[in-house]
Amino acid sequence: MAREARYARLRRIVELTRRIAAAPGRLYSLAELSAATGAARSTLSGDIALIDDVLQEKGLGAIETVTGAAGGVRYRVGFAALHAADLAQALTVELSDPERIIPGGFLYMTDVIFSPHWSERIGSLFAGRFQQEAPDMVLTMETKGIPLALMTARSSGLPLAVARRESRVTEGSAIGLNYVSSSGRIGTMSLPRRALPAGSRVLVVDDFLKGGSTVRGLVELCQELGASCVGIAALCETPSEEKHLPAPHFSVLRLDAVDEHQRFVRLGPSESFQRYLEEARHHA
Amino acid sequence: MAREARYARLRRIVELTRRIAAAPGRLYSLAELSAATGAARSTLSGDIALIDDVLQEKGLGAIETVTGAAGGVRYRVGFAALHAADLAQALTVELSDPERIIPGGFLYMTDVIFSPHWSERIGSLFAGRFQQEAPDMVLTMETKGIPLALMTARSSGLPLAVARRESRVTEGSAIGLNYVSSSGRIGTMSLPRRALPAGSRVLVVDDFLKGGSTVRGLVELCQELGASCVGIAALCETPSEEKHLPAPHFSVLRLDAVDEHQRFVRLGPSESFQRYLEEARHHA
Repeated sequence: MAREARYARLRRIVELTRRIAAAPGRLYSLAELSAATGAARSTLSGDIALIDDVLQEKGLGAIETVTGAAGGVRYRVGFAALHAADLAQALTVELSDPERIIPGGFLYMTDVIFSPHWSERIGSLFAGRFQQEAPDMVLTMETKGIPLALMTARSSGLPLAVARRESRVTEGSAIGLNYVSSSGRIGTMSLPRRALPAGSRVLVVDDFLKGGSTVRGLVELCQELGASCVGIAALCETPSEEKHLPAPHFSVLRLDAVDEHQRFVRLGPSESFQRYLEEARHHA
Repeated sequence: MAREARYARLRRIVELTRRIAAAPGRLYSLAELSAATGAARSTLSGDIALIDDVLQEKGLGAIETVTGAAGGVRYRVGFAALHAADLAQALTVELSDPERIIPGGFLYMTDVIFSPHWSERIGSLFAGRFQQEAPDMVLTMETKGIPLALMTARSSGLPLAVARRESRVTEGSAIGLNYVSSSGRIGTMSLPRRALPAGSRVLVVDDFLKGGSTVRGLVELCQELGASCVGIAALCETPSEEKHLPAPHFSVLRLDAVDEHQRFVRLGPSESFQRYLEEARHHA
């Protein structure tokens, strides 16, 4: 290969990697990539195979090829078992800080949930965990579920629907639900009818899983709209209660204790997380 | 260069591009990248210069080098004027669809705001527009501001704080505010004290800018906590009122009319957007 052609290839590889990796789940047709880079499709196929190979080797995801007239390539965020274990470990360290203890025995997690740095990695992990269930929609309840759900949707290339505490006049006809929260209060949730198409396969995401009443409410909303829940993902769960969840669930962490007086927090990877890690290692 | 070394370089370029581009705003030290790729720092410098050159040429951002002991490289999302114009045009087409008209003369925008596909591009645009103001924090009000604010924070590599309608026992001591919304109702907003460090330079993000009362409330919260607002970004604004905003503001679209009976929507790029575009073209 001539020097100039090699240089052109290097530049094309940078552009392709940047374009594809910046929009996980988005299907790029070869025609589109060909127009952007000025390279022939056969050339692109070789480049994409190389990019895919490196991403897989480094545990950074993979490029999926969709054949047929509406085909193309799309980036699937990968979360190698190694990275997942690192993430759970880093979250455990970050959240075990006694400075996070709030009077009343609560744990301040809001900054982590709203941080793009953390939420993006957690969302990638959720997307990878539920890839096999082939969801086509992500659903959460306002407010703290939103960042994790948005990043999960981003990593899977899916749309996101958000249930609100009250229906809004700006969102048209909505379906509503009363439910009893784990603290014993009656809550309401509402979802615009147009937010969730009938037949959707829904991945439900939330920040914190306690009694599971919010998640059960979301699953009921799905069913009312003719959709089904294929999985439930949460950042953190409590061990206390039987949750009777209506779909397979996955959480990263289990919060065992927040001791306000002795100033310690006990939390670590959840059982569902450890199971996932073992399976991932088994397949690797 | 031997064939094998050239191949190794290609693979390294893929990995570097993927790592750096996937975490905009994050500072990578050369030591860290050297450990990940196994390449010497001098080699990496050449690779990074190449990646930077391609990204800049294609209007996909740039790689910034920070010198000194705590130095390294970081990816700055770029939004070339050409892409910004495309985005405003695509949003105009998407949101002008009469199917989006909600009884009462409202426009359904929720799906666009919650879509990672749209919110990511809008967030990149906001990050690029306000890069010069050097914010170190993004702030929004729940609920619909969150996706745009999170993606803005992601693109700028900044943390995000979210004001809530009510303070939460799980978030510790909070600062609260009553304000009169543009519809004349009294609203409350609350922000945990620990969410916003004193001295922060805050970029305020919201979905819709009408009378500006929410945004003014957020700016007041900033001031109460000893922070200052360096800019205000919104997806859409109305033309109707003087907004008396306390910081430079930028919106993508201006919504002029939603006619429920004749079934049309009139909206397009806002004045602040057009001004930004002209300046960006002037500098290009």
